[in-house]
Amino acid sequence: MAACGFVVSSADHFHFNTAECRRLRVDDIIAHLTCVSLSLSCLPLPLLPGGYEVHAGGGGGVARAAGVNGTGPSKLVDPLEDLLPGVGTYEDFNTIDWVREKSKDRDRHREITNKSRRSTVDLLISVSDAFSGWLLMLLVGLMSGALAGGIDIAAHWLTDMKEGVCLIGFWFNHEHCCWNSNETTFQERDRCPQWQSWAELITGTPEGAFAYIVNYLMYIFWALLFAFLAVALVRAFAPYACGSGIPEIKTILSGFIIRGYLGKWTLIIKTITLVLAVSSGLSLGKEGPLVHVACCCANILCHLFTKYRKNEAKRREVLSAAAAVGVSVAFGAPIGGVLFSLEEVSYYFPLKTLWRSFFAALVAAFTLRSINPFGNSRLVLFYVEFHAPWHLVELAPFILLGIFGGLWGALFIRANIAWCRRRKTTRLGHYAVTEVLVVAAVTALLAFPNSYTRMSGAELISELFNDCSLLDSSQLCGYKQVRRLADRPAGEGLYTALWQLALALVFKILITVITFGMKVPSGLFIPSMAVGAIAGRLLGVGMEQLAYYHHDWFIFKGWCETKGSKPEMFRLNPLGGGVTRMTVSLVVIMFELTGGLEYIVPLMAATMTSKWVADAFGREGIYEAHIRLNGYPFLEPKEEFDHSSLAVDVMRPRRSDPALAMLTQEGMTVGEVEALVESTRYSGFPVVVSQESQRLVGFVLRRDLLISIDNARKRQDGVVSASQVVFTEHVPPHAADGPPPLRLRGIMDLSPFTVTDHTPMDITVDIFRKLGLRQCLVTHNGKLLGIITKKDILKHMAHIANRDPDSILFN
Amino acid sequence: MAACGFVVSSADHFHFNTAECRRLRVDDIIAHLTCVSLSLSCLPLPLLPGGYEVHAGGGGGVARAAGVNGTGPSKLVDPLEDLLPGVGTYEDFNTIDWVREKSKDRDRHREITNKSRRSTVDLLISVSDAFSGWLLMLLVGLMSGALAGGIDIAAHWLTDMKEGVCLIGFWFNHEHCCWNSNETTFQERDRCPQWQSWAELITGTPEGAFAYIVNYLMYIFWALLFAFLAVALVRAFAPYACGSGIPEIKTILSGFIIRGYLGKWTLIIKTITLVLAVSSGLSLGKEGPLVHVACCCANILCHLFTKYRKNEAKRREVLSAAAAVGVSVAFGAPIGGVLFSLEEVSYYFPLKTLWRSFFAALVAAFTLRSINPFGNSRLVLFYVEFHAPWHLVELAPFILLGIFGGLWGALFIRANIAWCRRRKTTRLGHYAVTEVLVVAAVTALLAFPNSYTRMSGAELISELFNDCSLLDSSQLCGYKQVRRLADRPAGEGLYTALWQLALALVFKILITVITFGMKVPSGLFIPSMAVGAIAGRLLGVGMEQLAYYHHDWFIFKGWCETKGSKPEMFRLNPLGGGVTRMTVSLVVIMFELTGGLEYIVPLMAATMTSKWVADAFGREGIYEAHIRLNGYPFLEPKEEFDHSSLAVDVMRPRRSDPALAMLTQEGMTVGEVEALVESTRYSGFPVVVSQESQRLVGFVLRRDLLISIDNARKRQDGVVSASQVVFTEHVPPHAADGPPPLRLRGIMDLSPFTVTDHTPMDITVDIFRKLGLRQCLVTHNGKLLGIITKKDILKHMAHIANRDPDSILFN
Repeated sequence: MAACGFVVSSADHFHFNTAECRRLRVDDIIAHLTCVSLSLSCLPLPLLPGGYEVHAGGGGGVARAAGVNGTGPSKLVDPLEDLLPGVGTYEDFNTIDWVREKSKDRDRHREITNKSRRSTVDLLISVSDAFSGWLLMLLVGLMSGALAGGIDIAAHWLTDMKEGVCLIGFWFNHEHCCWNSNETTFQERDRCPQWQSWAELITGTPEGAFAYIVNYLMYIFWALLFAFLAVALVRAFAPYACGSGIPEIKTILSGFIIRGYLGKWTLIIKTITLVLAVSSGLSLGKEGPLVHVACCCANILCHLFTKYRKNEAKRREVLSAAAAVGVSVAFGAPIGGVLFSLEEVSYYFPLKTLWRSFFAALVAAFTLRSINPFGNSRLVLFYVEFHAPWHLVELAPFILLGIFGGLWGALFIRANIAWCRRRKTTRLGHYAVTEVLVVAAVTALLAFPNSYTRMSGAELISELFNDCSLLDSSQLCGYKQVRRLADRPAGEGLYTALWQLALALVFKILITVITFGMKVPSGLFIPSMAVGAIAGRLLGVGMEQLAYYHHDWFIFKGWCETKGSKPEMFRLNPLGGGVTRMTVSLVVIMFELTGGLEYIVPLMAATMTSKWVADAFGREGIYEAHIRLNGYPFLEPKEEFDHSSLAVDVMRPRRSDPALAMLTQEGMTVGEVEALVESTRYSGFPVVVSQESQRLVGFVLRRDLLISIDNARKRQDGVVSASQVVFTEHVPPHAADGPPPLRLRGIMDLSPFTVTDHTPMDITVDIFRKLGLRQCLVTHNGKLLGIITKKDILKHMAHIANRDPDSILFN
Repeated sequence: MAACGFVVSSADHFHFNTAECRRLRVDDIIAHLTCVSLSLSCLPLPLLPGGYEVHAGGGGGVARAAGVNGTGPSKLVDPLEDLLPGVGTYEDFNTIDWVREKSKDRDRHREITNKSRRSTVDLLISVSDAFSGWLLMLLVGLMSGALAGGIDIAAHWLTDMKEGVCLIGFWFNHEHCCWNSNETTFQERDRCPQWQSWAELITGTPEGAFAYIVNYLMYIFWALLFAFLAVALVRAFAPYACGSGIPEIKTILSGFIIRGYLGKWTLIIKTITLVLAVSSGLSLGKEGPLVHVACCCANILCHLFTKYRKNEAKRREVLSAAAAVGVSVAFGAPIGGVLFSLEEVSYYFPLKTLWRSFFAALVAAFTLRSINPFGNSRLVLFYVEFHAPWHLVELAPFILLGIFGGLWGALFIRANIAWCRRRKTTRLGHYAVTEVLVVAAVTALLAFPNSYTRMSGAELISELFNDCSLLDSSQLCGYKQVRRLADRPAGEGLYTALWQLALALVFKILITVITFGMKVPSGLFIPSMAVGAIAGRLLGVGMEQLAYYHHDWFIFKGWCETKGSKPEMFRLNPLGGGVTRMTVSLVVIMFELTGGLEYIVPLMAATMTSKWVADAFGREGIYEAHIRLNGYPFLEPKEEFDHSSLAVDVMRPRRSDPALAMLTQEGMTVGEVEALVESTRYSGFPVVVSQESQRLVGFVLRRDLLISIDNARKRQDGVVSASQVVFTEHVPPHAADGPPPLRLRGIMDLSPFTVTDHTPMDITVDIFRKLGLRQCLVTHNGKLLGIITKKDILKHMAHIANRDPDSILFN
């Protein structure tokens, strides 16, 4: 791995000393991509045999070994056994070949099925193989559900810790503490002598200016402590644990390999720091990080099953399901989770994965429910009950909210990306810890005085979602003389609450822009939902008061008379649509979350509006924007390639380049092959019939070639530099005195993908996307012309969009 | 079209006189497939120029004309204009080429985008083009919603007509009639003097044996009348209107062309006969037919927009969305509809279609809600309200129900397919009308005495879903002395009800097997849901009574004490899972339908169990089984191809076959080309550099070739049989005295798909499925070897499964 002057060892995962976690990792990615990937324009990479061995620290994303390529004569070899260790595996920061991986798995499956007829043991192996997928899903569901439950409980406890402590046991949270107390009354559920605020404990009095200041300071102290611990742990042990993780998981699912990103250290550190980050009061959620945690669980559990350990494509199916599990446990929304994985995260999502995701999400939700972290036996985080049918007039405010959501989403993405780019390109990036501490301090300073920002995001949303019943003492229900619920003027308390909410809205909008992308685990869903809920509640109350004072207005007729206005309704406001551009999954999550089944139509209207409005300002969602910012090699499946170039325009070599390096199926010596491989930078070589005809025979990967030659030199007698390398089926007669030839047909891909030079690039891109190719050869009238790699396509797309191809792809 | 001795004209759609609608149509399919499709083993088809013109009666599935192929030099031609009418279009019963269609659309889009910079008018055209998709979705939603509302109202009215008539206006249904009466009390909502049963009207007394017999006879009379009208209309005007339509729509969406299947006559007749069939009391639902109706609407509306009229791939996107709309209006379940389309029906479902389906389903649901056919302002058909959390013990009965559902599903599919095969192969098929009348008579005879079978499927389900409140007078709530709701022994009434339910269960199971597949519109969802609901209720009451009498049993401890048993819960029983093998979409539909949000986990458990159990007996769902029964060319995307054959084993020509017919890029005369085309049966010919080298240049379709030559002979001076046909870019110099050459590069596909002879068939099948190919050329070391068509693959798969390739594919 000592290539290109970089020493990237497993130690990186343990001792990571620069200030910027993603920055350095991305540099590594650049270095490796430039070296290893299939592009024709990168530096020489002397691959050391054995250098593909697994690194201790990572644990994740590692293809340890795999069967030989399942085509041609290699069919005769047992695909369960490795011909040569290393052949068919991938380097770190490399793109997998989906077609080969899937073919390999089918060979494996066929082998097992064929064997199963022989004996009972083999039949049992076959059955256990068939059920291993479901078993794995069960384990992923159980593990993720348990972790999510633990995270919920710990975060709840630490969040309350910022305000006070339980005297009967510091490990109780506020609610639990008072629950255990006999002196708690139903009216004042959250007050009991056992729970003491810090002011009470230190100064002895819970009231007064001094107590307020003590509480304030303690709040800031804990927030800073948690934030510091979070960022320090991330930096010290698992730099990959920062951020939401969804852009990287999208990239991994699209077929990229980032070792250690889903490893055990990332899992442990992300779990711990997620609790700390959420508790610190920063404006972040746990959706994205939980998806990352679930994917780590899945990746680690994959190692228990050969089928998934050895096959990158199969493993990605499991990871797709794990993404569904993550959302399922984040919101208690199993169906929404499956849809999220389908719509937002996954690249390849066959129906089989749909069913398995469904199962895993179910198990996870069930596990979480058994742990019961919210203490209400419900899966639903914010339970809302509405059954009154909605009125046509009410669509208007929903659409208004959709427009607001879309504007906010577009603005948020721009501002956040601008800020993240600044962080990447300026010295700011070197002060990750300081940045987190400053943001945490600012957040705590500004959040404490306002009760709506002081509470955690989830609490805020659940407060906003609450109905005003007659007994409710919340400020938000501060109406004057409540004669009947449906018709009431606002009172003092409500006006105060509205002011505070408006301030909270502005605060949340601004602070979230800075927070998302810091070096702590951070999700975006809860903050954007909080913004949506505040906006919805404000609009709802506004509409209600308007309707109260102007009963006679045309639009309110029929509406108020039949059932009065309902300010609470508009809080079902899926603002996330503007940010992430999810639609169906978002609505499903929203109504699994809230139970607001009646409101599918207005919710859909709001979501679609918000998506359209946001799309008008730029088609990228926040995750795609971050993928592009970080230069991951991700071929966006949603956007159409809309340019009239042909394959011949994109392929290498260009006219000014040297001719394509290719091997001939016979006639080259080992020495010549080695010289060619050494002198070029390509990671794969087409094999042709002869230099004259240039008719394509197959494709051989640099890595496989080097490993095989090296192995042959070591173990096979008589293989010297003068030995012939033969790719043909039948070995040509060789001179009796010469060395025996080296047969390498086994490592050659006999079915390389080809397109003609006249193939439009839109079709080529489609082929790459749908089949998950690494490279494709270009022919003209049967003659080999050149090669197109995924990177060439990405560069070409960047070129079309007037972005600098190199800086965009690997900055 | 007078090919192969078949005369298939548009008149068929109007005057259809044989007894078996599908039978003859399928014969046509066979004939056409054998003639037109790309296989190398079919009869000569003298394609008459102009024979591709649209047929009046059909209206659907017709690709009227299209731009030239968007590759190579044809880029220079304006893709909005037709080079030659007919070039690039498809014959009836032919498979489309997805890649070309999508490429064509991208060319179109590019053209419009490029033009839009020129003038304001072009900009407006571009904008309207961008929004035409959404506009179309809006129209589809509105039209389908309106039609569904009309069908609901009409079916409700006609169903009540079987029992009696409203004196104040025969057009009122029972509920509406009594609603308008002043004498109706709340206690006896369904009794009022204005509504008279037939006995009351005829004999003057509503009670007594004679009255019962009169009612019985009238019930049978109306049932027979409706059934006869339904089958007669289907036979006379639109044979395609029979059945559920989903197997055919799946086939069409996979890229097959069946003209008239989605035409206006099918729409009109299916709408009318659906009402009649549902009202006749036959054991059928309206889910499938409503999907068909929505697809017809979409197909007809597609003709308003050039973009969709001219492009088969784009139209299929709209049809996918329409399938979602169909389910959305059938159940008031927009999200479930989208998932249904994704999981069950669609072949190609990009995210863009997801969003549009979502929108269309929303509009349709909204339209339906505005029409308000159920009179309760709810989208939800069977509203259930459960909020009590469920207990772990309760999972067991849910899984039990799942097992029952799976067994029933597997059994149902076998029995139904066996019966349908009998209908196809024996003389039974000739008596479609008699069959329907006999089944309707049997259904009516057996259904009337049992109140649970007498009511319509939807009513039955909603009765079974009902909670037992204290005031409920329904038989199902006939408990002894109801002290508290949670703890009650069964009374007389309940026992009677249980017996009736058990009989209804057996009856429904048996009659549905015979009913599904008759020559009337018939859906399967409501009957299978009814079976599920009955089984669920029976089990629920059983569990309840068991718990009542055995409080002390271990499993009931904790359960009964906390909240008592709840028999109603188990009625949420998605038995469809065993029949259709839907999972996620089914659960979503179930809980959109019932609002049983709390029960996602048990519902999922039941669905998964039912799917697994059914899968153990056979992997095919009912729709796939019907597709196979009818021999549609459908490449199942769900099943993995699991055999180790290579492309060379599947391709034509086989070793014993004559050599592959190919054209050379220059050197052939018009006469020679025509002779080759006449002497072979293939619908496409590869073009090679020369007969010696056999290096592939491109691929040209028979249809395009014939049209072009014919057109050239008519319009271009000097084109005679001795003219050279030239496919090269530059015309070679020709003798001054010879005729000028005919250039045909424009109609040649310059980027034919190729695989090597060593490509494993699993990869090839994957390519066919994912890219939607018609054919693929096979090369060896750059030399053309043969061709693989979709039909070759299907035949190969049938061969592997030990089924006779020919009889399976086209019986």
